[in-house]
Amino acid sequence: MCSKKASQYHKVETPPPQPFLKSLKNTLNEILFADDPFRKIRNEPKTSKKIELGLRHVFPILEWARGYNLGYLKSDVISGITIASLAIPQGISYAQLANLPPILGLYSSLVPPLVYAIMGSSRDLAVGTVAVASLLTGAMLGKEVNAVQNPNLYLHLAFTATFFAGLMQTCLGLLRLGFVVEILSHAAIVGFMGGAATVVCLQQLKGLLGLIHFTHSTDIVSVLRSIFSQSHMWKWESGVLGCCFLIFLLTTKYISKKRPKLFWISAMSPLVSVIFGSLFMYFLHDHFHGIPYEGIAVGRSFAMYKNYNIDGNKEMIAFGVMNILGSFSSCYLTTGPFSRSAVNYNAGCKTALSNVVMAVAVAVTLLFLTPLFFYTPLVVLSSIIITAMLGLVDYEAALHLWRLDKFDFFVCLSAYFGVVFGTIEIGLILSVGISVMRLVLFVGRPKIYVMGNIQNTEIYRNIEHYPQATTLSCLLILHIDGPIYFANSSYLRDRIGRWIDDEEEKLRTSGETSLQYILLDMSAVGNIDTSGISMLEELNKILGRRELKLVVANPGAEVMKKLSKSNFIESIGKERIYLTVAEAVAACNFMLHTAKPDSPVPEFNNV
Amino acid sequence: MCSKKASQYHKVETPPPQPFLKSLKNTLNEILFADDPFRKIRNEPKTSKKIELGLRHVFPILEWARGYNLGYLKSDVISGITIASLAIPQGISYAQLANLPPILGLYSSLVPPLVYAIMGSSRDLAVGTVAVASLLTGAMLGKEVNAVQNPNLYLHLAFTATFFAGLMQTCLGLLRLGFVVEILSHAAIVGFMGGAATVVCLQQLKGLLGLIHFTHSTDIVSVLRSIFSQSHMWKWESGVLGCCFLIFLLTTKYISKKRPKLFWISAMSPLVSVIFGSLFMYFLHDHFHGIPYEGIAVGRSFAMYKNYNIDGNKEMIAFGVMNILGSFSSCYLTTGPFSRSAVNYNAGCKTALSNVVMAVAVAVTLLFLTPLFFYTPLVVLSSIIITAMLGLVDYEAALHLWRLDKFDFFVCLSAYFGVVFGTIEIGLILSVGISVMRLVLFVGRPKIYVMGNIQNTEIYRNIEHYPQATTLSCLLILHIDGPIYFANSSYLRDRIGRWIDDEEEKLRTSGETSLQYILLDMSAVGNIDTSGISMLEELNKILGRRELKLVVANPGAEVMKKLSKSNFIESIGKERIYLTVAEAVAACNFMLHTAKPDSPVPEFNNV
Repeated sequence: MCSKKASQYHKVETPPPQPFLKSLKNTLNEILFADDPFRKIRNEPKTSKKIELGLRHVFPILEWARGYNLGYLKSDVISGITIASLAIPQGISYAQLANLPPILGLYSSLVPPLVYAIMGSSRDLAVGTVAVASLLTGAMLGKEVNAVQNPNLYLHLAFTATFFAGLMQTCLGLLRLGFVVEILSHAAIVGFMGGAATVVCLQQLKGLLGLIHFTHSTDIVSVLRSIFSQSHMWKWESGVLGCCFLIFLLTTKYISKKRPKLFWISAMSPLVSVIFGSLFMYFLHDHFHGIPYEGIAVGRSFAMYKNYNIDGNKEMIAFGVMNILGSFSSCYLTTGPFSRSAVNYNAGCKTALSNVVMAVAVAVTLLFLTPLFFYTPLVVLSSIIITAMLGLVDYEAALHLWRLDKFDFFVCLSAYFGVVFGTIEIGLILSVGISVMRLVLFVGRPKIYVMGNIQNTEIYRNIEHYPQATTLSCLLILHIDGPIYFANSSYLRDRIGRWIDDEEEKLRTSGETSLQYILLDMSAVGNIDTSGISMLEELNKILGRRELKLVVANPGAEVMKKLSKSNFIESIGKERIYLTVAEAVAACNFMLHTAKPDSPVPEFNNV
Repeated sequence: MCSKKASQYHKVETPPPQPFLKSLKNTLNEILFADDPFRKIRNEPKTSKKIELGLRHVFPILEWARGYNLGYLKSDVISGITIASLAIPQGISYAQLANLPPILGLYSSLVPPLVYAIMGSSRDLAVGTVAVASLLTGAMLGKEVNAVQNPNLYLHLAFTATFFAGLMQTCLGLLRLGFVVEILSHAAIVGFMGGAATVVCLQQLKGLLGLIHFTHSTDIVSVLRSIFSQSHMWKWESGVLGCCFLIFLLTTKYISKKRPKLFWISAMSPLVSVIFGSLFMYFLHDHFHGIPYEGIAVGRSFAMYKNYNIDGNKEMIAFGVMNILGSFSSCYLTTGPFSRSAVNYNAGCKTALSNVVMAVAVAVTLLFLTPLFFYTPLVVLSSIIITAMLGLVDYEAALHLWRLDKFDFFVCLSAYFGVVFGTIEIGLILSVGISVMRLVLFVGRPKIYVMGNIQNTEIYRNIEHYPQATTLSCLLILHIDGPIYFANSSYLRDRIGRWIDDEEEKLRTSGETSLQYILLDMSAVGNIDTSGISMLEELNKILGRRELKLVVANPGAEVMKKLSKSNFIESIGKERIYLTVAEAVAACNFMLHTAKPDSPVPEFNNV
């Protein structure tokens, strides 16, 4: 190890104090405007140009409409028709999950896409209803009003709920609070969506088996009990037809997955199923009494957070306005379903105009084709829902979580089983709770490890990670891997005490020289609060009683600012704070070998 | 900057994989047994000795009783009598805060101290009732049963509550879950205790002004309205007597604070006040009808968490057993009041025997002096409570928080105003909520800063903290100051993008060479989860599209383990991960100047 003269050490600087309001403004900026959305507008000198940029920011249509050409139109028409063919059967199916008339599923693919085409910033996103949100709508409204006994009130309640959901989204977006959805980890979403999809599939057994009475609970135990207690009511015709459609839909899906160019096969298959099933029933409904083709399927489901996460606050406003205006025009909750957006992308859409094309296609369907849907067998709708839902049970993602991070896998499983064996709310609370617990645990139990010197260098690293690193007998270097906060200050104090006990015991048994210095490497201590400072002061006293000296290496700007405001620096002495571990070690060696520890303060180099 | 040959770089190692169960065991050990309580027992080879050590661990009396001598006894008797003189008047006062008969306050200083003397490990702690816990007992039980109309049921409810509180404490201690109280930060406790003390003081205005009817709410608005609406009922005799006692008590307290050796003056003054007040009323109660001396004063208060925090799980078990046994012998909730423990310490107690002496002194009082307390004026009790409570309004601590850490000050204020203007529950929820929010925010918005080279060294530091550090034009070094988790991965991606935008703009305006490498310093990234890994993979793709190369320096053991399980290392290339920032910079320079970026992989030195 190299040894330096005291005068060569670098000084750890204390950043200049910042006015309170300025630092508050910076902090709020980082929390709320991390992506700096107004960058371009701010940098623009002209006011007229500023307004133009602002309008374009709010209405991205102004951006893409200028460069629009015939080639784009062709692509958008093709992709628009493709997503319409998916939106129509899925819209009808999902509306039934929400206990709403099927026609509402079509209305919901009419107005919201038009709003999104004006305000949305993604060109691939296809707007429409989603299964999980529909299921949740059904579950929540069903608690208040019975959809069969009081259909009108139920309908109004659905529109009101949509209006307030839109208002909430708009407010979150305007207040730049979109980041609250980040509280749900990816693992929690995988488990939660998988659980919701499982629940939705289980509900479809009602349609597949042609049952009339069914449990209102969503947990797997109630559903299975309800199904097997009615085994004498199972309708074989319904089951056979359902299996045929299911096989057809799954096969087309498999083909499209294997050959992405054939995406249109799986995109068209739901519409083909609906048309074929409806024609089948139209001509043969007198012969097959076992296949119900009218009525309301009961089920439940949830909101696809994935896209909010990507689109941020601005997209949240677009979604909010879309739902507010939607609620005025007989639509219920809409968002950007991931699967349909993927189809839109594969179909080669160029701009948000594909949503407009879809809306037109849906309008044409509404005007001329609705009589056909009267005969659509429920079993076809169930097959369509099951096919869509199976894609959401992402067992590969769960396996990936198990391989990479056991804790994430545990979060995922908790969310899944919470939804499947409990209720959707339990699953959601479990996943948010465990996700937050993980964050708190990270701060509450930071890693502390012993560092050693990598030979022939000035590099110090974790001796467990780099077993070849060598330690010194009179000096214990501890690296704290996290902030020092109230939630971990007692732990850190105890844990540092244990490291010292261990080291002293080791030295005692091997008969080496005794410990003299405890060096805390603060490189990874991002922040410290008042409890943390008190802990350091207490630690210094405890070490003093044990005749050990505390030395600190590389405290960051934030930590240095707070330490210098407290008495800690004076109590350990300014000269005991070094810029690097290597310099601190050199200084300790210097003091041990050439002078008494309480010799005059070495001077610092002005860096 | 020095430039090395590629073969000189050190390799970042991937720690060997650990069996899942072993790493789970280690993690749980760190969470639950951080202080390693069974260290001595585990290291002891003999079984008989192991049992002896175990018994001593559970019953510390076995430890100190062996070396006990006459000198200790003398000290313990003096300190025991001193704390008894404080426990008797405070016990009577606090029982009234809980709407319980005054005698219960004395019972509670009888059995629990005896239990603590056997099981407790602190020698200074004085056991007894505390104001805040008494107030809370009163507030919570009062919601269920009216203490005046149904005194018997109320009493039984109080014992039952004490029993379950004890059971809860014992269970938390046995399950090693004592750390849950760490969720309350020091700042929150300062604010909360200050608020509770303010509320208790406000309640005492009833006693001081001799009022009979009083609001049941604890918030300042209700209390002040109740007082000023009854200004015609104020009793001047009561007010004058109260002020006299208050001045006496505060003066003695001031003297003891200035001269710690005279601690016994303030320790004795409450008992002197009670005796003097009672004698005064005994002889003169016919002349002063305005001074009530009988009945129940209504008020509320809370639990001193401070000591649990220090004593850990083992003390929690001792407290739990103390309350369980207490509830069988007509005691209500007891703990170790901080102020009385301080007196005990100042009085020179040597062992927990001082608690036994206190219990004996209280028993003598119960046998011979209770008739005297019949005439104790309520106003004296109010003065005693106010004096004790004023010490809890720690405005100096609040000022200290403001100076050191604005956020902690905000937490403190929220807790204070939550209690004073809302209810105790609101204050508690606010302080826990804001404390947890701070932890989540730390992880959710980690600092990222640009690093520069400190000239003539291989040291790289934050350029805002060390403005003299110099940056390179073709290389942007970003330091991430926290773990990469789901809660911050979108933020980090956006923020890194912004740093690159800023840097490229700066280079464009100054006309320097363009950016080539983005170097992420991961020294302070303590952990990463699956969302974090996905973010890094995405970032690598984004940078690739912008023709930038991602380089990583010093990932820790945990991070390296997870990165190597994912595809990230392969996707950026093993040779792009360096042990130190300096080596990464040297390698980038080497590649820029002597070879094309996609030249053969440099070999690593085997460290």
